[in-house]
Amino acid sequence: MNLIESISKNIYPLEQKYMQQAQARLDRLIKPTGSLGKMEDICVQLAGIYGSKYFDTSKKIVISFAGDHGVYEEGVAPDPQNITILQFQNFPKKINGVGTISKFVGADVLPVDVGINCDEKIEGVLDYKIRKGTSNMTKGPAMTREEAEKSIEIGIEMAERCIQDDYTLIGIGEMGIANTTPSTAIISVLGGFDPAEITGIGAGLKKELVKHKAEVIRKSIEINKPNLKDAMDVLSKVGGFEIGAMAGVIMGCAANRIPVVLDGFISYAAALLAYNINPRTKDYMIASHLSAEPGAKKALDMMGLEPFLNMNMRLGEGSGAALAFNMIEAANYVYKNMATFDEIDMGR
Amino acid sequence: MNLIESISKNIYPLEQKYMQQAQARLDRLIKPTGSLGKMEDICVQLAGIYGSKYFDTSKKIVISFAGDHGVYEEGVAPDPQNITILQFQNFPKKINGVGTISKFVGADVLPVDVGINCDEKIEGVLDYKIRKGTSNMTKGPAMTREEAEKSIEIGIEMAERCIQDDYTLIGIGEMGIANTTPSTAIISVLGGFDPAEITGIGAGLKKELVKHKAEVIRKSIEINKPNLKDAMDVLSKVGGFEIGAMAGVIMGCAANRIPVVLDGFISYAAALLAYNINPRTKDYMIASHLSAEPGAKKALDMMGLEPFLNMNMRLGEGSGAALAFNMIEAANYVYKNMATFDEIDMGR
Repeated sequence: MNLIESISKNIYPLEQKYMQQAQARLDRLIKPTGSLGKMEDICVQLAGIYGSKYFDTSKKIVISFAGDHGVYEEGVAPDPQNITILQFQNFPKKINGVGTISKFVGADVLPVDVGINCDEKIEGVLDYKIRKGTSNMTKGPAMTREEAEKSIEIGIEMAERCIQDDYTLIGIGEMGIANTTPSTAIISVLGGFDPAEITGIGAGLKKELVKHKAEVIRKSIEINKPNLKDAMDVLSKVGGFEIGAMAGVIMGCAANRIPVVLDGFISYAAALLAYNINPRTKDYMIASHLSAEPGAKKALDMMGLEPFLNMNMRLGEGSGAALAFNMIEAANYVYKNMATFDEIDMGR
Repeated sequence: MNLIESISKNIYPLEQKYMQQAQARLDRLIKPTGSLGKMEDICVQLAGIYGSKYFDTSKKIVISFAGDHGVYEEGVAPDPQNITILQFQNFPKKINGVGTISKFVGADVLPVDVGINCDEKIEGVLDYKIRKGTSNMTKGPAMTREEAEKSIEIGIEMAERCIQDDYTLIGIGEMGIANTTPSTAIISVLGGFDPAEITGIGAGLKKELVKHKAEVIRKSIEINKPNLKDAMDVLSKVGGFEIGAMAGVIMGCAANRIPVVLDGFISYAAALLAYNINPRTKDYMIASHLSAEPGAKKALDMMGLEPFLNMNMRLGEGSGAALAFNMIEAANYVYKNMATFDEIDMGR
């Protein structure tokens, strides 16, 4: 049994007993029943994940993976490929989107190189490079099956590293020029969507090129024939190293009963891969914001996830996950600190 | 010229020059253009409101008004009427929904009694009681035109009081058993909606009574014939004291170039009244969360407002406004602190 199989075997259902205890407390807070909406849902889910009526969500981190993509050469991205390394250098300095938001919310960022197209090591970035970018998926598989497994294993390892360092709330993020293209491919395959239906501008592709991007995705699927019953096959044929690593973090968190906060569209592709490997992973996911990509809602609907932020963001990096940390902590604070009908006599 | 007219005359357009400066800075942050979505929109709007490239959003307050409703006797609310006073006593202690969230985000709460059905003064609550609840609007106007004006004037006064106390970010909230009923009536009149189309469960009315509630609203509109061209007429006939006061805060904020953060459904009714008096008030409003009431999106669409939180909340009090403070501050923090392409060489 390999690491992925053994981790998957260790993903258990949420603990109903603590979810009921959390709901019972929420129902005693001095408010109409259910009126805090998703703030309540989050607390109930967290109780089920942690297996505890009360929990601490203050030590938080975004694990952000970078990788490059062979399909870049098909002209599917608006920026030069070296933006991946240029921008990833800013992650450890926390001066970029996810870094600045993390400073605001009091979170850490762990940047990991799983496949940037460069030879140099980046200061402050963990080096887990699998290869200098995937292969061009319009011409064959993006990676080997072994590389796909390796990417997921790195994600699991990073999750467990953070959990050993006492982080109790983990977000996922990424950086990789062109990576909405493999993400859209994964979601198309797993959801049975026509790529034209869910392909968007990503980081800002010219509108007139979106059709071309969808065609590139369609061609990649056609030539590789990924097996939608086999997540590893899908990842290897039309995926990306950072996407596999994010799926690994989800699995690592689920197996260790730690909530994992999704980011935007690319993280949805990772989430669908993890969900495909083991549907129980879904119970450990918290959807943060609704990505601006046209397939965003469709991807989340497949897992029955509903985001609570609607920011029209399309930055990635883990920026949406970091922003959502704040809402999750607000929910936990209200759950713990708001008065109950037992403390205040209001006739109930 | 009365106070409301003179305040309305002092509401000016947003300052384009500073909005352009803000957008120019946002476009230089190290991210794809526009990729921070509504975080960017918020910063541009704030620059236009404050008339300044940079601004401080750290001193924040929710002004929350309480009032009772004569229409309560028609059986449109799930809770006893005295919940208004019982719950409002908790506002100054900050142990209720808006109070707890305000503690989390570092905001203050100013509770104001504009019409609770009680004789006693409440400790920590400002006493601006107009009357001990409105009249039953199914039998005639909820209040006189003078009372309607008075309610708005109180709101203006409260806004100016907070602005004199150096608050630079103001939210509105309310407490009043049965007040989704007049709110739905106002939105029905101003939007030309059939009440049956937009009436919901409010704080938790039994589903089988929603039809009755809609019928009560329809009857109130029919008997009073509010003039949809005259916000004061609509407020007096089918409104509430706390709703008028919230509209007043919006006007007071707009005239003083201070952003005003809406809360849920009842605040949308207040916003529509202010918008009806002077459409420019809209430029000073920030929609926080999408209320769970069925008419919520319709009401916001009338003003072209888009909330950024989708929490399925229906608590009121100002709880959604307080939660949104956090996102607004996050947006401002990112705007000020994220690196720009001028600081980092990334080829742009």
